[in-house]
Amino acid sequence: MQYRMVAAAVLFLVFASVRARAQNKTVAERLGYPADSKLLIVHADDLAAAHSVDTASFEALDKKSITSASIMAPCAWLTEVASYAKDHPDADLGLHLTLTSEWKVDRWGPVSSIDKVPSLLDPTGYLWPEALPAARNLKPEEAEREIRAQIERAIALGIHPTHLDSHMGVLFSTPELFGVYVKVAHEYKLPFLAVRIPNAPAQLLSVLSEKDVILDSVVMANPTVHANEWRDFYVNAVKNLKPGLSEMIVHLGHDDAELQAVTVDHPDYGSAWRQRDFDFVTSPEFKKALEENHIILVKWKDLKKLVN
Amino acid sequence: MQYRMVAAAVLFLVFASVRARAQNKTVAERLGYPADSKLLIVHADDLAAAHSVDTASFEALDKKSITSASIMAPCAWLTEVASYAKDHPDADLGLHLTLTSEWKVDRWGPVSSIDKVPSLLDPTGYLWPEALPAARNLKPEEAEREIRAQIERAIALGIHPTHLDSHMGVLFSTPELFGVYVKVAHEYKLPFLAVRIPNAPAQLLSVLSEKDVILDSVVMANPTVHANEWRDFYVNAVKNLKPGLSEMIVHLGHDDAELQAVTVDHPDYGSAWRQRDFDFVTSPEFKKALEENHIILVKWKDLKKLVN
Repeated sequence: MQYRMVAAAVLFLVFASVRARAQNKTVAERLGYPADSKLLIVHADDLAAAHSVDTASFEALDKKSITSASIMAPCAWLTEVASYAKDHPDADLGLHLTLTSEWKVDRWGPVSSIDKVPSLLDPTGYLWPEALPAARNLKPEEAEREIRAQIERAIALGIHPTHLDSHMGVLFSTPELFGVYVKVAHEYKLPFLAVRIPNAPAQLLSVLSEKDVILDSVVMANPTVHANEWRDFYVNAVKNLKPGLSEMIVHLGHDDAELQAVTVDHPDYGSAWRQRDFDFVTSPEFKKALEENHIILVKWKDLKKLVN
Repeated sequence: MQYRMVAAAVLFLVFASVRARAQNKTVAERLGYPADSKLLIVHADDLAAAHSVDTASFEALDKKSITSASIMAPCAWLTEVASYAKDHPDADLGLHLTLTSEWKVDRWGPVSSIDKVPSLLDPTGYLWPEALPAARNLKPEEAEREIRAQIERAIALGIHPTHLDSHMGVLFSTPELFGVYVKVAHEYKLPFLAVRIPNAPAQLLSVLSEKDVILDSVVMANPTVHANEWRDFYVNAVKNLKPGLSEMIVHLGHDDAELQAVTVDHPDYGSAWRQRDFDFVTSPEFKKALEENHIILVKWKDLKKLVN
């Protein structure tokens, strides 16, 4: 098996290049916008991982500070998100397919029967804590079984997912896992997060169909961004957006006792980080930057129409 | 199968009467106290169910406001409790064997492989939310498999349980389940919560051994106690303790955003309730009542020596 592992923060960039021009049109044109529009999905990850993450994300969805979010089905708070989804049928909620359990004191296992997915479990019986050991150990057929179980669990609770993506990029980390991810997305007729890269291997491209929507870029804060540069990082990212389809991935939460405990000893993507992301996406500065740079906000729901 | 179901709050009282006088001695005498001593375990339930529950319980253990506590192995915060247990090897921590998942938006499944314990799952795939449907549906052999898995999971994480009890009393609700509970406790050489009742059926008594320690009474707040009578309820309970071995079961937590969400729409044993319990057990009034009534605090660890 071929591994293409990098730091978890940029894992999701490591795949899939294809000129996704069904009928020779850009995604913007397929959605009815001028060909060179700057389209942006503003997306919160990790719903259901903690109540603090849920409340911050629900508030940002309600305020239209973000367009979309995705849900971790194996986590304890899934029912809370399902309840929100039922009360907000227009909310653009996908599944953040989860094959890792990365925090120190708050852990989760798979949705599947554990004896059917032994390669997904670390020695303590939870999902692997990091993307690298996960990708090294898990068998693609067991990953497939688990992501199907996560989708079915969400549907059974009344969630109608609008898209799929991958927690910590595990499903982007080998061609085999990427193949499983795309196959399942196709079967469920769901768009999925995949980002254009130059010179993508033929093995990756071969699983894609002409209708698939491939993103041109992703913006996400990373550990090199200092806390006091948060606003500038995002405002500059908005200014620098090129024509095409981009996603800004944020991690929302309130910096409270629960989230500080969940993310203990892990400042990257930790509690204060998530508060900063929440503060930025709900700020007038963000709204202003989007307006001044003529950014068109789109949802995965819009893209779902294109792949069906 | 014979059901003996009552409200969950008193379920744990519904079983087991035996004169537990090994060598014709009372438990107090077996522990080296005068025969008519008033022995009390002050016990917090539900560790690992929420971070808020954990921090309140750890604080009460550290202050010696409570003597003992028990842990829910299927819950998300088990690793947090395991970490505390490693740092506090003298802490008296047992397992709160868990066959229900009773909250509205924060749910959990079994530790076992779900295809090995299908009778434990409600239609959404989590453990049954109430003791009654749990007891009606679950097969004793699957309950046994699950409680063994919970004990093994805790041990694997470095917890050395001092005793066993049963979340929401599910394991006290039928003679078959009680039999499984006692059998597993005997195998692990652990004392277990069981309370003397008059005229207990022979089927219950037959599983007990002469060494088993049976409690004479249990004190627990229930929904008939008004919030403003909390202190009086407990102080009177302490005053009214009879000679023998009793347990005061409390449910600790901080009334914060996480716990309010966990216990949403469920004031009984809810967030404010747990704060009241915490405030009482850590109060000077409680300490004074124990002293004035000559209560001897004991731990499950002390009882563990008697059953081995």
